[in-house]
Amino acid sequence: MLHVAVVGYSGSINNSPVKELRSICEEVGKLLARHGHVVMTGGRDGVMELVSRAVSKEGGRVVGVLPAGDEGNNHIEVRIRTGMDFALRSVILTKSADVVISMGGQAGTLLEIISSYSYGRPVILLENTGGWTDRIRSVLIDDKYLDERKTVEIKVAGSLEDLERFLKEADNGKV
Amino acid sequence: MLHVAVVGYSGSINNSPVKELRSICEEVGKLLARHGHVVMTGGRDGVMELVSRAVSKEGGRVVGVLPAGDEGNNHIEVRIRTGMDFALRSVILTKSADVVISMGGQAGTLLEIISSYSYGRPVILLENTGGWTDRIRSVLIDDKYLDERKTVEIKVAGSLEDLERFLKEADNGKV
Amino acid sequence: MLHVAVVGYSGSINNSPVKELRSICEEVGKLLARHGHVVMTGGRDGVMELVSRAVSKEGGRVVGVLPAGDEGNNHIEVRIRTGMDFALRSVILTKSADVVISMGGQAGTLLEIISSYSYGRPVILLENTGGWTDRIRSVLIDDKYLDERKTVEIKVAGSLEDLERFLKEADNGKV
Amino acid sequence: MLHVAVVGYSGSINNSPVKELRSICEEVGKLLARHGHVVMTGGRDGVMELVSRAVSKEGGRVVGVLPAGDEGNNHIEVRIRTGMDFALRSVILTKSADVVISMGGQAGTLLEIISSYSYGRPVILLENTGGWTDRIRSVLIDDKYLDERKTVEIKVAGSLEDLERFLKEADNGKV
Repeated sequence: MLHVAVVGYSGSINNSPVKELRSICEEVGKLLARHGHVVMTGGRDGVMELVSRAVSKEGGRVVGVLPAGDEGNNHIEVRIRTGMDFALRSVILTKSADVVISMGGQAGTLLEIISSYSYGRPVILLENTGGWTDRIRSVLIDDKYLDERKTVEIKVAGSLEDLERFLKEADNGKV
Repeated sequence: MLHVAVVGYSGSINNSPVKELRSICEEVGKLLARHGHVVMTGGRDGVMELVSRAVSKEGGRVVGVLPAGDEGNNHIEVRIRTGMDFALRSVILTKSADVVISMGGQAGTLLEIISSYSYGRPVILLENTGGWTDRIRSVLIDDKYLDERKTVEIKVAGSLEDLERFLKEADNGKV
Repeated sequence: MLHVAVVGYSGSINNSPVKELRSICEEVGKLLARHGHVVMTGGRDGVMELVSRAVSKEGGRVVGVLPAGDEGNNHIEVRIRTGMDFALRSVILTKSADVVISMGGQAGTLLEIISSYSYGRPVILLENTGGWTDRIRSVLIDDKYLDERKTVEIKVAGSLEDLERFLKEADNGKV
Repeated sequence: MLHVAVVGYSGSINNSPVKELRSICEEVGKLLARHGHVVMTGGRDGVMELVSRAVSKEGGRVVGVLPAGDEGNNHIEVRIRTGMDFALRSVILTKSADVVISMGGQAGTLLEIISSYSYGRPVILLENTGGWTDRIRSVLIDDKYLDERKTVEIKVAGSLEDLERFLKEADNGKV
């Protein structure tokens, strides 16, 4: 069992350049719930809410790591009120995770990708979900690191099967 | 369902001046689990560990809000790594709770009692469990407030029945 | 040179039960500035603002450790935007200090006194300034500790001379 | 007067691919001190220490926003002990700044660049100082933004004159 953070676009998914993002979120949520992972998000709308709803529907556990003044979306079981602004709570979210899954995303998502790497948490980029999840790849060192320290590998998942395999490896301590 | 934080003595309960503290922790843990509350602690030993073990045994959910460098005791299901020192993580713990239960405790517990009050979270003091849980009572204003703002009532539970009633009231939004 | 945090009543000092509090704040500010100490506050009104103004007038340095959404009073030279709520920023304030001076105060000030003690920062209570600065004394262990760990001594200053002496001792590493 | 955060390589500057980095740091420090800006860093070695030393030599003010367990380098006048790990204190550092100057840097510096942008703080990249300060440029949107929200412009300074001009604009509220 892993603590898996899911990060990505907030706001309306309808504005996402990727049409299938809604169904990808649902598939990811189901997969995480079925494997019994604890799913953590920043508690807001967009990717966070869609994945959380799918996890919750499947009977899984959802933790919301919330910024100050926000009680989170309706699919949160455990609610951590950090008393902090968005960026600080994002850092706590990624630190608490064993693995981080990224879909699309603006600067807030980029911050979460960098923060995850800094803490040595493997990030799994879901290919073709847009935003920084795709854009970050062009500046990776050796296609997988964010600096010369090579703290941890960043993975690219081209399919749900890839995602499932990476999670399994992480659970076995292989990542 | 409530998010209930449990605070109190860390370290060996054997050093506690209250002999029955171990069994009180077990009873409190069982009670919380049976009512389906999410139980949150600072993740360490002493009261935190004893209550968490009891909750876990009973099939309940335990969240550890951990200080930096600490992976917490063995009875934690959801682990929040705050990246912060003891005092800061204590503040996040109490903010995340709907109600806080206090048993015994040194200065760290006192900090959690004050912090809970500041956030408007009702604190339930378990009578005769020693430490600041008992000592704070002599300086309460009107036997239940920590300042003239009267932010929220501090309750004293003389029995598990009292505790159960206070939790029920909190769940009904009556506290 | 010390980092000295000043904590106490926020809001209008006119509501304080202690008439001379305004002039006490001014004297304390002057004293701190003359000794070249870095003065830190939570950046708000009341005691914080009055002391900061006096320090600033005397050419001293004032640091405001600010909660989210607050740019602080007009007498701050260095502004730390914590991005956190009141209680969390209070904890960072006391941790950053070498010594803490307390005047009057409600539950927020009490939190700062406890937090200072937990970090091993000596607290100097200015006698007869009201609020928790006076009230805490009745529950101290051996008139100076907040728990059996005896982490650091809490001092009571009956006069500015006492305060000056305690600060000197702290500066010499004697506290 | 501005609060200016300086971020970049920690560790030995001798390992930096940019030979002149040491003298660039000194020039930047002098410039900031002469203009009376408050200089903030994460308090460690490398770029942070070199700039702080230059500021201090010139009689300027240096604030260190320190991670837990670190008392910072020897050129800090005001010391903020955040009680937090590296990443969290980096976020507070950038939030507290009006402008951020970046030189070289690994993933920690990248986190600070992203965090600055998220808070709407203009980042000035010192050209040809290596690391993420140079690498980030290839993935900027319209050569100056980190996402489609276009929160704030990222600037590239090719010389100290550029830097001085950008700071002046920021001070006039033009950035």
